[in-house]
Amino acid sequence: MNLDQHRYVLPARDIPTAWYNIAADLPEAIPPHLNPQTGQPATPQEMGAIFPQEIIKQEVSTERWIEIPEPVREKLAIWRPSPLVRAIQLEKHLKTPARIYYKYEGVSPTGSHKPNSAVAQAYYNKQEGIKRIATETGAGQWGCSLAFACDLFDIECKVYMVKVSYEQKPFRRSMMELFGASCIPSPSNETEAGRALLAKDPNCTGALGIAITEAIEDAAGREDTNYALGSVLNHVCLHQTVIGLELKKQLAMAEDTPDILIGCAGGGSNLAGMIFPYVKERMEGKGPQLLAVEPSACPTLTRGKYAYDYGDSIGLAPMAPMYTLGHTFVPSGIHAGGLRYHGMGPTISMVRKLGLLDAVSYHQNECFEAGVTFARVEGICPAPESTHAVKGAIDEALKCKETGEEKCIVFNLSGHGHFDMLSYDKYLAGDLEDYSLPQENIDTALNNLPEAAAETSIS
Amino acid sequence: MNLDQHRYVLPARDIPTAWYNIAADLPEAIPPHLNPQTGQPATPQEMGAIFPQEIIKQEVSTERWIEIPEPVREKLAIWRPSPLVRAIQLEKHLKTPARIYYKYEGVSPTGSHKPNSAVAQAYYNKQEGIKRIATETGAGQWGCSLAFACDLFDIECKVYMVKVSYEQKPFRRSMMELFGASCIPSPSNETEAGRALLAKDPNCTGALGIAITEAIEDAAGREDTNYALGSVLNHVCLHQTVIGLELKKQLAMAEDTPDILIGCAGGGSNLAGMIFPYVKERMEGKGPQLLAVEPSACPTLTRGKYAYDYGDSIGLAPMAPMYTLGHTFVPSGIHAGGLRYHGMGPTISMVRKLGLLDAVSYHQNECFEAGVTFARVEGICPAPESTHAVKGAIDEALKCKETGEEKCIVFNLSGHGHFDMLSYDKYLAGDLEDYSLPQENIDTALNNLPEAAAETSIS
Repeated sequence: MNLDQHRYVLPARDIPTAWYNIAADLPEAIPPHLNPQTGQPATPQEMGAIFPQEIIKQEVSTERWIEIPEPVREKLAIWRPSPLVRAIQLEKHLKTPARIYYKYEGVSPTGSHKPNSAVAQAYYNKQEGIKRIATETGAGQWGCSLAFACDLFDIECKVYMVKVSYEQKPFRRSMMELFGASCIPSPSNETEAGRALLAKDPNCTGALGIAITEAIEDAAGREDTNYALGSVLNHVCLHQTVIGLELKKQLAMAEDTPDILIGCAGGGSNLAGMIFPYVKERMEGKGPQLLAVEPSACPTLTRGKYAYDYGDSIGLAPMAPMYTLGHTFVPSGIHAGGLRYHGMGPTISMVRKLGLLDAVSYHQNECFEAGVTFARVEGICPAPESTHAVKGAIDEALKCKETGEEKCIVFNLSGHGHFDMLSYDKYLAGDLEDYSLPQENIDTALNNLPEAAAETSIS
Repeated sequence: MNLDQHRYVLPARDIPTAWYNIAADLPEAIPPHLNPQTGQPATPQEMGAIFPQEIIKQEVSTERWIEIPEPVREKLAIWRPSPLVRAIQLEKHLKTPARIYYKYEGVSPTGSHKPNSAVAQAYYNKQEGIKRIATETGAGQWGCSLAFACDLFDIECKVYMVKVSYEQKPFRRSMMELFGASCIPSPSNETEAGRALLAKDPNCTGALGIAITEAIEDAAGREDTNYALGSVLNHVCLHQTVIGLELKKQLAMAEDTPDILIGCAGGGSNLAGMIFPYVKERMEGKGPQLLAVEPSACPTLTRGKYAYDYGDSIGLAPMAPMYTLGHTFVPSGIHAGGLRYHGMGPTISMVRKLGLLDAVSYHQNECFEAGVTFARVEGICPAPESTHAVKGAIDEALKCKETGEEKCIVFNLSGHGHFDMLSYDKYLAGDLEDYSLPQENIDTALNNLPEAAAETSIS
């Protein structure tokens, strides 16, 4: 066992100085977001009601490199560069000839990759004089990350947290409050949308779509307030490319070349962050295979359709060109809350549509099983979302065991599971369900795709 | 802001190859443990009923360096060496001329320094054919760490967890089960001691002393089973010296020399681990100042007495020569569960008695305040125990601000608080009490020191 080199750590000066914008290298332009009312491309003016100008520019930019402002790099240095680790104990356990590496994003203040974008978004809002940001959060990862980032730049932060999660995950709320944010259960009495819903059903447990609606209403209604989103959008995927850019340097340190890169995919931002810097090589036929792992309960890339669809589940958010199961699709209650999204980021979707990205789906029990294996040998308990990437990597390594191939497998361990022990509890007790997903459920939701979208063909 | 060098990370080959045994360099021998029944020095035979021979040897060894077996180093490499971080954001926030560094032990699989000893203890038990280890845990840190270590060496692990913590901290139990251990609330029906207590009071919420009694009864009664302790004892402090040995190399990388080393102290093992490699210099009048930080609610070093006392609160465990508040002393219910111990490890106690270690105590609210400050600027939420070290470091840095001194302050951030968010919640809500501790409470407990101890004077 060679212990000399199994953890590859870069100094802070190796935090990238620019984000990589994949739009510059794709052979096809990413179609624009559409105004949900008009079906016409959303204008910068419309988006300016809730986003800072710099973020709107990044959303549509085709510049290859976008400079990371020094104050953002300084804050990223609180935890970045994140380590790349050779999973030697896992290799040994699996008896695989493959080399397995993981990029560990769980070292961040909130335990996932989310602050990579939160810090950038908070910075640009601060630059443009915004005093307050409203957002939604489901499981709490994004809410915590934006709370932390806002605190760094002295911005007030208001988080609408899906009520059922607010009650089930009180410690995510604690963390938001620790970082000075205000977190309330959604639906709330603080917005018109929330009040209307509560009037109809005082016991409404909420949903991500509702929380998004409340946060946008909050932001649109106040001059000093903007809105921020933690995944899906182009600028979020852009900010996450620090992951893949660091990874390239670290694999060079390891004197290794990746054969396959694996990440879990919900809205797509952690996967995008890792793989985008490798897509150009892939287009030239020489890069590593790229693999998205998604839950069988929400198989956007494996069973969805590439089409325009609303970003939220109600139909108030802009329409985006993406793989989608239909905005009315309601995934079953799996524990990987961050992967329960009906769509997929437009840039990831384009990469998929171009045939550059493979995708596979797994049930939650097999993912938790992989997570437990990983925790027991590598000493890190993965977030339920991240167990999907672990499962993907283990399966690839086991294939190598059969074929004798000595592949270099790299996966993104997007976060730790310290705030998700309840789901491990349930898994260990045998209480987790593997939901089947009848095709008619998907067909029904796909029948509800917005009509406006039909006017702008993207097939 | 110079980002180039603020995180000092060693490769795995720099994990020490030997532990440093302070007994070799102290001018006075550590008095032996005494049999609680006879008051006579505990024999290796007596200790052999529950400990492996190699551990017993280490407990009384005066060899300066004790080799770390390669299989232990290999397992330590899962997370070690732990990083040393220059807290530049904290320095900036405090506007101090001091340089503040923290050694971060929270990167371990269970989030604290505890696995440093758990892995070694599991290894020696495995070597001597032990199939099963029983232990107790209060807040759960030690139970999780031993569960992880036993899993690595394929040993069955049984944890008796204080019932009130078992109910309040279910996710620590989840983690033990994740690592394959069995964790039951104490008092339990599985030991005579437990059954007797439950017969008297079926609703008994347990205590660390009771859980220790159950674990020892379990281990003493089964040939295949040993017992393991997570702090206090000499061999545990020995195993923790990897912290200070790594620190020396890391400060050399930083081209810096420490003026003061600060750690929180419960049983003393994390503090011992950091400072012992510096004590010899201190004896020679040239090392850094050494500072223990303890809770005002359990001020062992600042208000206790150096005397022989039982290791547990019932009087069944061996008597140890140490600073103690009396084994019948019951600290109030502060949230830093790991610091609620009536005594202090014999080696730490000796260093204190020799005048080489300073000590200070703080109330819990001021420690949580320091913890929140740290989290908000450095991005790590400290364990309640570790907030004591943070508070100590911040106060030293603020003194430097007044005097203009450019001291090099180093503290041990012994763990993260991801499983302790409930206490942050209470702090933020203003619901935490600062207990006063009347001198008569201490006097009463000190009047109950064991008589047997009087026969072996240690003044």
